[in-house]
Amino acid sequence: MEETIAVYPGTFDPVTRGHLDVIHRGLIIFKRLIVAVVNNPKKHPVFSIPERVEMIQESTAGMPGELEVDSFDGLLVEYMRKRKANVVLRGLRAISDYEYELEMALTNRHLNEEVETIFLTPSEKYIYLRASTVREIASRNGDVSAFVTPNVEKRLIDFYR
Amino acid sequence: MEETIAVYPGTFDPVTRGHLDVIHRGLIIFKRLIVAVVNNPKKHPVFSIPERVEMIQESTAGMPGELEVDSFDGLLVEYMRKRKANVVLRGLRAISDYEYELEMALTNRHLNEEVETIFLTPSEKYIYLRASTVREIASRNGDVSAFVTPNVEKRLIDFYR
Amino acid sequence: MEETIAVYPGTFDPVTRGHLDVIHRGLIIFKRLIVAVVNNPKKHPVFSIPERVEMIQESTAGMPGELEVDSFDGLLVEYMRKRKANVVLRGLRAISDYEYELEMALTNRHLNEEVETIFLTPSEKYIYLRASTVREIASRNGDVSAFVTPNVEKRLIDFYR
Amino acid sequence: MEETIAVYPGTFDPVTRGHLDVIHRGLIIFKRLIVAVVNNPKKHPVFSIPERVEMIQESTAGMPGELEVDSFDGLLVEYMRKRKANVVLRGLRAISDYEYELEMALTNRHLNEEVETIFLTPSEKYIYLRASTVREIASRNGDVSAFVTPNVEKRLIDFYR
Amino acid sequence: MEETIAVYPGTFDPVTRGHLDVIHRGLIIFKRLIVAVVNNPKKHPVFSIPERVEMIQESTAGMPGELEVDSFDGLLVEYMRKRKANVVLRGLRAISDYEYELEMALTNRHLNEEVETIFLTPSEKYIYLRASTVREIASRNGDVSAFVTPNVEKRLIDFYR
Amino acid sequence: MEETIAVYPGTFDPVTRGHLDVIHRGLIIFKRLIVAVVNNPKKHPVFSIPERVEMIQESTAGMPGELEVDSFDGLLVEYMRKRKANVVLRGLRAISDYEYELEMALTNRHLNEEVETIFLTPSEKYIYLRASTVREIASRNGDVSAFVTPNVEKRLIDFYR
Repeated sequence: MEETIAVYPGTFDPVTRGHLDVIHRGLIIFKRLIVAVVNNPKKHPVFSIPERVEMIQESTAGMPGELEVDSFDGLLVEYMRKRKANVVLRGLRAISDYEYELEMALTNRHLNEEVETIFLTPSEKYIYLRASTVREIASRNGDVSAFVTPNVEKRLIDFYR
Repeated sequence: MEETIAVYPGTFDPVTRGHLDVIHRGLIIFKRLIVAVVNNPKKHPVFSIPERVEMIQESTAGMPGELEVDSFDGLLVEYMRKRKANVVLRGLRAISDYEYELEMALTNRHLNEEVETIFLTPSEKYIYLRASTVREIASRNGDVSAFVTPNVEKRLIDFYR
Repeated sequence: MEETIAVYPGTFDPVTRGHLDVIHRGLIIFKRLIVAVVNNPKKHPVFSIPERVEMIQESTAGMPGELEVDSFDGLLVEYMRKRKANVVLRGLRAISDYEYELEMALTNRHLNEEVETIFLTPSEKYIYLRASTVREIASRNGDVSAFVTPNVEKRLIDFYR
Repeated sequence: MEETIAVYPGTFDPVTRGHLDVIHRGLIIFKRLIVAVVNNPKKHPVFSIPERVEMIQESTAGMPGELEVDSFDGLLVEYMRKRKANVVLRGLRAISDYEYELEMALTNRHLNEEVETIFLTPSEKYIYLRASTVREIASRNGDVSAFVTPNVEKRLIDFYR
Repeated sequence: MEETIAVYPGTFDPVTRGHLDVIHRGLIIFKRLIVAVVNNPKKHPVFSIPERVEMIQESTAGMPGELEVDSFDGLLVEYMRKRKANVVLRGLRAISDYEYELEMALTNRHLNEEVETIFLTPSEKYIYLRASTVREIASRNGDVSAFVTPNVEKRLIDFYR
Repeated sequence: MEETIAVYPGTFDPVTRGHLDVIHRGLIIFKRLIVAVVNNPKKHPVFSIPERVEMIQESTAGMPGELEVDSFDGLLVEYMRKRKANVVLRGLRAISDYEYELEMALTNRHLNEEVETIFLTPSEKYIYLRASTVREIASRNGDVSAFVTPNVEKRLIDFYR
């Protein structure tokens, strides 16, 4: 549908190869995709919003399609109204994810009937991958090159050393 | 993406209001949607393929968008190649569904890298609804009008009496 | 509530110590409890309805409280209307049970708004116990005395030899 | 059983329409129901114990049956002993809830053999509803009127503005 | 422990690359491993017991370590007693597997206190893989070479054509 | 395999009868078992590393087999390399555990191909038992003697009074 704009919201602290896999697949299905970093200070993120936006921009450089990286405060449904987007894209990995995602999808539908959430499965290579695990490994000086792109790896090393 | 064609495969024995909810939501996201009845004799379906196709056609009459009802034998990925479709649409309800669906999505991706499966959540009104439960209730002379459209209800009554 | 009548429906093919644990706990909460064997020929039960009713009667003999063992055909909600019962009692073990039970509870509520389903957890001693596992073990000449009462054990031995 | 007293314990920070649905259903089954706000400072609740008690009282005003709203410190099983209550009532929504609830039920049974936990399913309208989601939406100035009663909505607005 | 003998029981109808991955990992941990095909006619297997044993032997040829392929009738715990084995090895994939496996492990422990079940996770490449899916794909003339070894593929083609 | 050394890593804050059950079972399977307390200050543990090590030593005194209690900082895979251990032992209880454990097992395998994680099921008596629940009960002056050994109970009482 030519006017479908999809938003892929998340904390992306930092963006992992699993997120990138979802973005890549999303770009095949949707003409326009906005990756939107959520401002959620309660989660005490390691990287600032501008840093997270920048890391996604660096990691997605060269991906085909109309991709934008942005950030927002407040409710996702409000952000989508402002951006005239009607589809939320989310990656599904574990069962516990699924329950949380289902709750969010149904809640957002209550807040705005026109917003539809669709789920994609990342490659099974990334099905175990969680940003918090990446941070944990990096904080213990482990090698995270299999989980994030080199630019993100560099920032993780800078942060934890 | 203008050339995205989505296929919603299933047994649809018979089509329920939950399936119709997924079809309706799919038509908002995808320009073209093919509802494809799978020929799976091992499941011993109650209705024949032509009956199931017809019930879906009757129940979706008047839905906006480019909708086609079809059926197929053999592998889904083969059918999609033939129809030049690249997206599989599936509704997600329970957790046990999710695991099965995840396995199917990953298996289909192995069989054809270009096929992407996306999941939609039906309205919570239909989150408990299963075609087998509808058949069970109808076979015990229960009222299924909340679960299926009148044309399907009529066929269920005819079948079980 | 003095007029609360609870029904504990099931296949009970055969009744296990896990079922008996749920019955025992149900009798502490509800003044009147009806254990109701469902006639479901599609499941190809090993024991006939009268045999299953008899085994439950034997196994619950001496339990305090107002307990009745019965059987029914057709829809549970119809049976409850006839018996003027308003509470369905079910035991919850595994997660996969839970999803099925939730679907049944919500479907029954749709069919009759006045029927409420409540769930009890059996003792963790019985949390792994399934009637089909008991049949499987008995059919391979294994010792099932830890899983069923002696009268049921005797019938299983008679059946499988 | 005439002397059955049920306790519905929870954080209720704040009480949602899902909680109210469980209370309403509980009152149909149990002669006497005590809604008991747990004092759990480690959860850093937004509303004080008296505020939470008051919101429940306001939201349940007019419900038929013998309902009391209370709060307690310490162990639930101790509180129940003091109140001569023998049934814990809990609402079940998602699978992850179920595991936690099962653990609590079995632990409480270990601490006091006479305490039985029973689970009810709220209406599927509220199956996605979580107090933390309500707080999240309110904190981002979203409309929570579908999730809580007007008195609770007013307090949420007052708190977050 | 020098005398530890592990048994990996299963239907293996047919053996998949996921099973082979578990066997390979088991051989690293256990000195002696017996792969034991269960005779379960109720499952209506596609291949006979001797065919299944043969396929496993062919597919594991060249694996290092002390590996034996066998089959058995009756209860697993009886077979283990006869073989003086004390560890059951099982692969864990999906959640639904886990519940079933847990039930089996606890039941076997009840039948024989000395039998311990341990679980291994196959490579995430095989986490979606199920023998029934392989049969389904082969029966629809799909390419199963990514899922089974060439000798098994050949037999599947012979069977379904 | 004579050279198999297994490591059972955990927070053990404090060690419970469930953990002890896993240790006991692990000692039957593995010649050498190292119980390794993870230094994870982010979890704000109640007991210090030396206290946790001591409690495990006291609680496992008299267990047959070659058992060592140790602690480590940094990545588990690094610790294992240093200790020349190749098997991680973990207990599996609930489903939510399983998902987390699966992620850890797959992540550790990525970090070190030679490390294999195996899972054991504790006795169903302990299947509901969580160290955080034990702390919660102790902090509310409840009786924890069914959940921990007397030495640990004494320390919990000392801490919370």
